[in-house]
Amino acid sequence: MNKTLLACTLLLGGSAVAHADPLSAWNDTAAKQSIEQWVQNATKEGSATFIPQDKRYVVFDNDGTLWPEAPLTFQIQFIVDEIKRQAPEHPEWKKDPLINAVLTNDLKTVAKAGDKGLIKLLTMTHTGITTEEFDKRVADWLVSHKDKRFGCSYDQMGYQPMRQLLDYLRDNGFKTWIISGGGIDFMRVMSQKMYGIPPEQVVGSFALGEFSLTDNGTQIRKTMNGAFNDDAANKPVAIHLFMGQRPVAAFGNSDGDLQMLQYTAANPDYKTFGLLVHHTDAEREYAYDSHPPASGKLVNALTEAKAKGWTVVDMKQDWKTVFDPAVCKVK
Amino acid sequence: MNKTLLACTLLLGGSAVAHADPLSAWNDTAAKQSIEQWVQNATKEGSATFIPQDKRYVVFDNDGTLWPEAPLTFQIQFIVDEIKRQAPEHPEWKKDPLINAVLTNDLKTVAKAGDKGLIKLLTMTHTGITTEEFDKRVADWLVSHKDKRFGCSYDQMGYQPMRQLLDYLRDNGFKTWIISGGGIDFMRVMSQKMYGIPPEQVVGSFALGEFSLTDNGTQIRKTMNGAFNDDAANKPVAIHLFMGQRPVAAFGNSDGDLQMLQYTAANPDYKTFGLLVHHTDAEREYAYDSHPPASGKLVNALTEAKAKGWTVVDMKQDWKTVFDPAVCKVK
Repeated sequence: MNKTLLACTLLLGGSAVAHADPLSAWNDTAAKQSIEQWVQNATKEGSATFIPQDKRYVVFDNDGTLWPEAPLTFQIQFIVDEIKRQAPEHPEWKKDPLINAVLTNDLKTVAKAGDKGLIKLLTMTHTGITTEEFDKRVADWLVSHKDKRFGCSYDQMGYQPMRQLLDYLRDNGFKTWIISGGGIDFMRVMSQKMYGIPPEQVVGSFALGEFSLTDNGTQIRKTMNGAFNDDAANKPVAIHLFMGQRPVAAFGNSDGDLQMLQYTAANPDYKTFGLLVHHTDAEREYAYDSHPPASGKLVNALTEAKAKGWTVVDMKQDWKTVFDPAVCKVK
Repeated sequence: MNKTLLACTLLLGGSAVAHADPLSAWNDTAAKQSIEQWVQNATKEGSATFIPQDKRYVVFDNDGTLWPEAPLTFQIQFIVDEIKRQAPEHPEWKKDPLINAVLTNDLKTVAKAGDKGLIKLLTMTHTGITTEEFDKRVADWLVSHKDKRFGCSYDQMGYQPMRQLLDYLRDNGFKTWIISGGGIDFMRVMSQKMYGIPPEQVVGSFALGEFSLTDNGTQIRKTMNGAFNDDAANKPVAIHLFMGQRPVAAFGNSDGDLQMLQYTAANPDYKTFGLLVHHTDAEREYAYDSHPPASGKLVNALTEAKAKGWTVVDMKQDWKTVFDPAVCKVK
C-alpha cells in the first residue's frame, strides 16, 4: 500500500473495517450463503424480489433459536430457582409433593405433573405481584445465577451467530421481532440488552394484568386471566395480533415454530425466507432432534423444510462459534 | 434583506420554510403553549426534564380524540352499513327484532339491546371471515360511504390539529401509539394513511383468531374467543401487554381514558403530559360533555384534569380548524 492510499484509507475509516464480515461467526457454508443471497435480493431496488422497507418484518423464536433450551428452558430454571429462593419463608411447601419435587431437584416428578403442574408453578412465581416486582425478580435472578455447564449468566448465552444475524438484518432495514412460547414479561427484561430488540417487538405467552390505583401511583398486578400460550398454531395468531402484518422471514428450531414458518412462507406478496436451527453439536452445545430417525421436538418442520426449501442450520457445521468465547466456556 | 443574506437563505432552504408552524391548525392559546413547552422540556438534552428518545412513547385514544365519535362511533356505523349490505342475501334477518331495528334505523331499539346486542352485531360483522376478507370489507366501506354531515369519507375525518400534533411529536423523536376501544383490525386498515401510525402501534379491542392451513396457503379466521375490551382499566393493561413500557404522554377525551392518563401520570421516571379533548363546538363538530353540570362521558377525567394539571382542549377556542377544510365541509 503506498503512502497516499494509506492516508486515504485512514481518513475514510479503513477499508478493513468497511468490509468486516457481519456474519463472521458463521462458517462459509450453504446456510450462510442462503441468508446473504436472500437479503441481497430483498434489498435490491428495482428487482422482482425487492421488499419495501416498511414490509421487512422478520420473526424469531427464542428458546433453542436465539439461546439454549437445555437441560431445562431457562424460564423453567427461573421458576425452580425462584421457588428455592422463597422456600425458607414457606415451610409448608415441603408437604406439597410437586413443590417438594422442585426443591429436591426431582425433575421426573415435576415432568409427570404435566401442564397442570406447570400452571401451578407458573401461578406461584409469575402472578400475585406487580409487573415492576416481577421484572426486578427476573433481573436479580440474572445477576445471581450462572449456567452450570458454560459458566456464564443466562443473558450472556445468546448464540453469537444469531445475534450477528439480528444486527445484519437490522442493518439492512429489517425490523426484528421475537415470537416465542416464553413469557412476554420474562423475555422483555433481557431482550434489549441481549438482542437489541425493544420490549414492544417481543411477543410471548401472556396473561392479562389487573390495573389499580394505589396510595402513591398505579400498578398492574400479574394474574393468569386470559392466559395465552404462544406456541404452534397460536404463533401466527399472535403475529397478527401484535405485529398486524405477515412476516417476510421466520427463524425457529422446533415443530412449535412450524405454523409460524408456514404462515410466513404463504406471504402472497414477497419471496420469503425460512430457517431452522438444528441442534447437532453435543460438544459445544447440545445434540438433539436428530433426523433420521425422527425424534424429539423437530420432526414435521424438518420434513417440511426440505419440501419448502427452508434453510436448515447444522450448528456443528455451520457455526464458527456458538457463544461469545470471551464469556461462555465449555467446562 | 441584503443580497448576501438572501443568497444564504436560499442556499439553506429558506428561513420561511424552516420556521413554518408545525401546529398551524391550533390557535395560540394556553393549550398549544402547554404542548410546545412540554416537548421543548422533554427534548432539551442535559435538562432535568429531558426524556431519552427510547422512552418517548406517547399514547392516543382514537374515537373522539383523533376523529369524531358522533352521531355514532364510526365502527358502529360500519356495523350498520355492513348489515344493510348483506341483508338482501338474508331475508330471514327481518324476523329478528334487533337486526330489523338496524335495517330500519331504529337506533333506540339497538341501544336498548345493550352489550348483549352489541356482541351479537359484532359477531355477525367481525367474525367467521378471514382477516384479509375483513380488511377488504372495511376498505370497501371506506371508499363507498361518506359522513352525511361533512360530506367526506370517514378516513378523511382525522382532526387536523391532532394529525399535526402526531407529526410534531414524531418529528421530535416520539413514538406515537393508538390505545383505543375500537377494534384493532378495524383501525389498522386506515391508521397508516390517516395518522402515519403503522399497524403494530395500533392497539384496540381484540379477540383471538384461529389459524389453519388451506389448499393454497394459510389463513387466520376472526372469532370472538378471548374477547378483550380495550377501555377504561383495561387500557393500561393493553399498554403493558403491547408496548411493554409506561408512556410519557397520554391524549384522550372521555372517562374511558382516565386510567390511561393516570397510569401515564404516575410514570416514576419522567415529567409526563396529559391532555383531554373537550367537545365544545356544535357548529364545526359536536358539543357534548359540557361541565358543569357534570354529564355524559367526560366527568371524572375532567375533574381529575384540574387536580393533575392536564391540558383540556376547548375545541371551539383552541382549534383554528377541525377538519381539513379542502375535503370536509359543514353542510
